[in-house]
Amino acid sequence: MTGSHIDTVRTGGRFDGNLGVLAGLEVIETLERAGIVTDRPITVAFFTDEEGARFAPDMLGSLVHVGGMALEAALDVRAADDGARLGDELARIGYAGPAPCPAAAFPHAFVELHIEQGPVLEAEGTTIGVVEGVQGISWTEVDLVGRSAHAGTTPMALRRDPGLGAAEVVVGVHAITAELGGAQVGTVGRLDLVPNLVNVVPASARFTVDLRHTDEQVLQQAEERLRELLARVADRHELDARTRSLARFEPVEFDPGMVDLVERVAQRLGHTTRRMPSGAGHDAQMLARVCPTSMIFVPSIGGLSHNLAEDTAVPDLEAGANVLLHVLLERSRASA
Amino acid sequence: MTGSHIDTVRTGGRFDGNLGVLAGLEVIETLERAGIVTDRPITVAFFTDEEGARFAPDMLGSLVHVGGMALEAALDVRAADDGARLGDELARIGYAGPAPCPAAAFPHAFVELHIEQGPVLEAEGTTIGVVEGVQGISWTEVDLVGRSAHAGTTPMALRRDPGLGAAEVVVGVHAITAELGGAQVGTVGRLDLVPNLVNVVPASARFTVDLRHTDEQVLQQAEERLRELLARVADRHELDARTRSLARFEPVEFDPGMVDLVERVAQRLGHTTRRMPSGAGHDAQMLARVCPTSMIFVPSIGGLSHNLAEDTAVPDLEAGANVLLHVLLERSRASA
Repeated sequence: MTGSHIDTVRTGGRFDGNLGVLAGLEVIETLERAGIVTDRPITVAFFTDEEGARFAPDMLGSLVHVGGMALEAALDVRAADDGARLGDELARIGYAGPAPCPAAAFPHAFVELHIEQGPVLEAEGTTIGVVEGVQGISWTEVDLVGRSAHAGTTPMALRRDPGLGAAEVVVGVHAITAELGGAQVGTVGRLDLVPNLVNVVPASARFTVDLRHTDEQVLQQAEERLRELLARVADRHELDARTRSLARFEPVEFDPGMVDLVERVAQRLGHTTRRMPSGAGHDAQMLARVCPTSMIFVPSIGGLSHNLAEDTAVPDLEAGANVLLHVLLERSRASA
Repeated sequence: MTGSHIDTVRTGGRFDGNLGVLAGLEVIETLERAGIVTDRPITVAFFTDEEGARFAPDMLGSLVHVGGMALEAALDVRAADDGARLGDELARIGYAGPAPCPAAAFPHAFVELHIEQGPVLEAEGTTIGVVEGVQGISWTEVDLVGRSAHAGTTPMALRRDPGLGAAEVVVGVHAITAELGGAQVGTVGRLDLVPNLVNVVPASARFTVDLRHTDEQVLQQAEERLRELLARVADRHELDARTRSLARFEPVEFDPGMVDLVERVAQRLGHTTRRMPSGAGHDAQMLARVCPTSMIFVPSIGGLSHNLAEDTAVPDLEAGANVLLHVLLERSRASA
């Protein structure tokens, strides 16, 4: 057992930042402190624009790293809010590095430690999530254009109200998830009305629809129902409907050998485990295109994520970091 | 007939601005050109903040003028968007005048010329709307607070989504107008989600509901149904719901003698007429508290208003201005 002659990772306190990167640095420090030289080199990676909230699609940095999107196309992506160009913003903040994209060589293996960002592990009292794959993600931006009109003088029957249309789509997206059931999720997180005034029937509405599923066929069904829903709503209220795909990733299955390794190591360290898909997108799904990949999840308190109250208990952070350490030790052997 | 010995108002072209004020100035100019001295003085009035889009309630200036709101309370009103104080903004743009509020004296009568802002007159081919009163207006700002969560990892059943709640209220407001039928209108013109990101279930939603009716009893029914709707939606999705009244005006009936006068003058000048309520709020409804008041409507092309394409045909503008002229001439007699 490779880990028997070194200290385990001990976190000094909370990881106030990206767990995967900070735990990766702890692993490196632990190896150096123990004087261990691995057969294969270990690199800690941090990719630009994992969230994609300002520059779509999400996981853009790792997508470009593995050759899934041309560097120039990525640098030309514009921000949804202010139209800023990604390449200009990277230069402005000093993040426009010189390394070639796609990378000149890909790793022997890749493993990513992450909080679950959901409520399942905590609810079950399980410490380590063994991640088998990632849900497919479909992001659509919708524009509904109607006719701005006076809220007091325009009879209901004469309105072409894109705000009402948008609201019917929000309700309809939730109906689609109920129909498809199971793991299907659907979210309208962004919605903007124009001109957005109390006494004016809106001229237009722009909103996003986020659909995710582990099964590509079901995800395509959800997308088809969204298209039908938009057509019905546009027809009912005499609206012009335009859609734009902001991101579309098929579900990803991680390498079975890497998944088994995470499970084996976690159980050997005495942790309870659960095999599960990831509901969120992760850079690991991009690396899975070019090398054996898996992920390690630790519980999120209250299932919260994308929320200032996001947190994970210190013992769970340490458990995750130690699983990461021993997975890396095993996989960095020349024979692995 | 008073008007027989003077020119009628002739508009040089479009009124590119406030019709009531510009037509009032045309009337004054026409009287001066004809050398007419009226028994009673004629004043052209222009009130601050008629729309109320930035500083609620609407018609705030005329409300303060007639003593319906204390001047200091009005000056302390804050903008919904940036929190600016009305008194500071008036001082900044040089509109903080020295005249006392409420006014030291009120007019003998008040008449307001306005575009219909709706589709009825144009649809019927009628030139002059004889306005009998103004719909009651109820503006409510609603805050729904749920729990921000990750759009990919949070199962639908575990969400507390205020965006979905807001959408259900938008759809429900339209259902309320359909149930109450007739002249009931309801509009959600403003809606903001926080944090408003594609992959985040919103933490909160803030939106406005604009309800209007000519009958106070029906308007109160609509408000009651809105309260019930909000309670149901908040309960269903475990949301905290808070409401704030932004404006509440009861329906107004104009002085029957003034309404008759507008109708008589319009018909004498050869125009088709129609008695109707106003769907929008107007300063005239505030003046109606302190003196005999009525309004003159002219058609809106396409029924459009609160829209850059808002327009009225020049012959209709002239017709309205001449009805205004002759109503003022009759009413400014010492015997009237």
